[in-house]
Amino acid sequence: MSGNGSTALLTDMYELTMVAAALADGTADRRCTFELFARRLPDGRRYGVVAGTGRVLESLQDFRFGDAELSSLEGVLDERMLKWLADYRFSGDVDGYPEGELYFPGSPILTVTGTFADACVLETLFLSILNHDSAIASAAARMVTAAGSRPIIEMGGRRTHEQAAVAAARAAYLAGFATTSNLEAARRYGVPAAGTAAHAWILLHDDELEAFSAQVEALGTDTTLLVDTYDIRHGIELAIEAAGPELGAIRIDSGDLGVMAHQAREQLDSLGAVNTRIVLSGDLDEYAIASLRAEPVDSYGVGTSVVTGSGAPTAGMVYKLVEVDGRPVAKRSSSKESRGGRKSALRRYKPTGTAVEEVVHPAASPQQVGPHDRVLPIPLVRGGDTLPDLPTLEEGRERLRQALVSVPWEGLKLSKGDPAIPTVFPEA
Amino acid sequence: MSGNGSTALLTDMYELTMVAAALADGTADRRCTFELFARRLPDGRRYGVVAGTGRVLESLQDFRFGDAELSSLEGVLDERMLKWLADYRFSGDVDGYPEGELYFPGSPILTVTGTFADACVLETLFLSILNHDSAIASAAARMVTAAGSRPIIEMGGRRTHEQAAVAAARAAYLAGFATTSNLEAARRYGVPAAGTAAHAWILLHDDELEAFSAQVEALGTDTTLLVDTYDIRHGIELAIEAAGPELGAIRIDSGDLGVMAHQAREQLDSLGAVNTRIVLSGDLDEYAIASLRAEPVDSYGVGTSVVTGSGAPTAGMVYKLVEVDGRPVAKRSSSKESRGGRKSALRRYKPTGTAVEEVVHPAASPQQVGPHDRVLPIPLVRGGDTLPDLPTLEEGRERLRQALVSVPWEGLKLSKGDPAIPTVFPEA
Repeated sequence: MSGNGSTALLTDMYELTMVAAALADGTADRRCTFELFARRLPDGRRYGVVAGTGRVLESLQDFRFGDAELSSLEGVLDERMLKWLADYRFSGDVDGYPEGELYFPGSPILTVTGTFADACVLETLFLSILNHDSAIASAAARMVTAAGSRPIIEMGGRRTHEQAAVAAARAAYLAGFATTSNLEAARRYGVPAAGTAAHAWILLHDDELEAFSAQVEALGTDTTLLVDTYDIRHGIELAIEAAGPELGAIRIDSGDLGVMAHQAREQLDSLGAVNTRIVLSGDLDEYAIASLRAEPVDSYGVGTSVVTGSGAPTAGMVYKLVEVDGRPVAKRSSSKESRGGRKSALRRYKPTGTAVEEVVHPAASPQQVGPHDRVLPIPLVRGGDTLPDLPTLEEGRERLRQALVSVPWEGLKLSKGDPAIPTVFPEA
Repeated sequence: MSGNGSTALLTDMYELTMVAAALADGTADRRCTFELFARRLPDGRRYGVVAGTGRVLESLQDFRFGDAELSSLEGVLDERMLKWLADYRFSGDVDGYPEGELYFPGSPILTVTGTFADACVLETLFLSILNHDSAIASAAARMVTAAGSRPIIEMGGRRTHEQAAVAAARAAYLAGFATTSNLEAARRYGVPAAGTAAHAWILLHDDELEAFSAQVEALGTDTTLLVDTYDIRHGIELAIEAAGPELGAIRIDSGDLGVMAHQAREQLDSLGAVNTRIVLSGDLDEYAIASLRAEPVDSYGVGTSVVTGSGAPTAGMVYKLVEVDGRPVAKRSSSKESRGGRKSALRRYKPTGTAVEEVVHPAASPQQVGPHDRVLPIPLVRGGDTLPDLPTLEEGRERLRQALVSVPWEGLKLSKGDPAIPTVFPEA
């Protein structure tokens, strides 16, 4: 185990009742493929960003039913099932899009192959991780695009579940955020952490100048002073009085941020603090960031909007049985239809490097791969073992950076519209 | 510790840099009160539901900096600060609204008193928990109201972070949901778990009748058969063929649910299955549930909408320093103003039991409490120790049930509007 404790009960009860019934009727060992994909992108979004695959693989190592887990299931499941869970160790294969890859409707983001029982029990956990992390990364990527070369600090941990906060910081970093406020994300994933002081620091002191001077004394001249507790203009004056014109940065967290940034820049320049940076925060999202493009801002702090997926808090991915003993299967009633059969995917590009279409095809019918095209899924797990040398978080970050360059320009617009490229489904 | 591991790094870096600076300049020991509250309710909501207080108290016990936490902070913080963290144990007081209580803009949901350093470091963790859990409970309560006497199963774990899923199941149960699909919520908090089978169960088998028969064989006649994999009408026929008219329930997860429920009820009755219940699921939220009020539905399964707060995924609560050494303090610039000073609150009621207003007053100026009024905060922690005999999750559930009865009838409407009762702030 990775040391984070068992992940086995982060599971919907019906996964286990199904397996119990399958052990009873002899179908548990049928060879199955489950496919994890999004039927559609969140309303008006142009692309999605795959995030969480690394956490999926970690969580798989910890998917074990120990005594604590088993005793909580006594009375709910029969003896045969409890025995099976005690011995559970995934022995199948997993393929998937690497983190930082774009996805579109129908992209086979993760493909799990094994016995029915082996693969069924992983549904809830895998969906939880990918639905959450991809929702955050997809929103974060839009903010990074809107911010251009200006760095963004993720500071939304206080607005979401305390463990979701850690995963959100990771996903935002994958998507190109520069730093996070979250210390556990720094420890667990090596995301660079940042932070200096809140309004409480100013209010704690008898006056603002005293607070600024003490902060500079403790954290150095390169610190960021929060200047909007009382009066911003006066705050900036005192900040430079306390730190001198070599002050690292000021932060403004309220008010009309565009106007404030403009006035602050003029004032700082007039005080000789020409290299003092301006950090803006306070209810920023991708639209607010885009609207500040022409203002003299050096970096952004983003909280609520990124950890809640900026209007799309879940990616809406599903995990569907698509193949049983080599036979394609699919739900066929009124809505929520699926395409049966195990699939693979490639993305076609123009010679210029611009993406043209997502081709999702039967795995048994490989497509011609042109010189500019890219096969998307990579092998992740074989026979239950996570493969060595899988892409790192830093590599995912670089992958996304490159992927966004390849998106047709309309696809990078923040306004609502169709997916940036169409998904096509050639038949076998 | 409660055994869940340290919660100390689920914290924004600036909490620790502030305390380091306060240790350096001698302000760390100033006696402070921080107040956790919501400036406003999510857009158009009539009330909020406090949830997470129980988890806050658990997490406080685990807020300890051990070797793993401290070594990750070396190089970031100075020796004095690391030493202080190693010895950290909250020694102050906490008061707050009990779980299941309603809250309104400005309600002092949690009040933390102690030295600046003691109380400052808890900000991020306390906000994460209360912002998440209250967002879920507030949405869930609207769904429970819309469902009337029909039970709801929470089944959204797959749509949110895997640990947020556990807290969401707890919060939904607090708000009146009957059961959850989440096994860890059952183990950790005793929430009743439920679940039978997914579409994969049907697709795994060579035909639908075989799947139904095997499920009834394994799980009993009282199970719930999922009838919408192929053709609902035929599915119901086969379900009764497999289980007989004593079948517990059928579930429909797609299509026009109102029409389907109606047709299914007629068909079941015609087959003699007059006691077979109808469970509906599939993208339900409070509005969809309300629209099904006249249809023959027995229970609902709700996923995405409840775990994402049905449009309001965070409660937007803040944690503000309001008092230092007995002196009220507050931010005073353009927006995001706060009211300084430690506060308490009571709710006034008509003799009929209908709530009239939320009175948030200086703690030093107690208000007259009429025979029908209720003082809202209760003591939770004294001298760092969690008090015994605090309200249980079940008691919180009952508290909310009673609180909702007291809301003026307009306040229970699902449509957007003002808070159900006004908050008034009498001066000292």
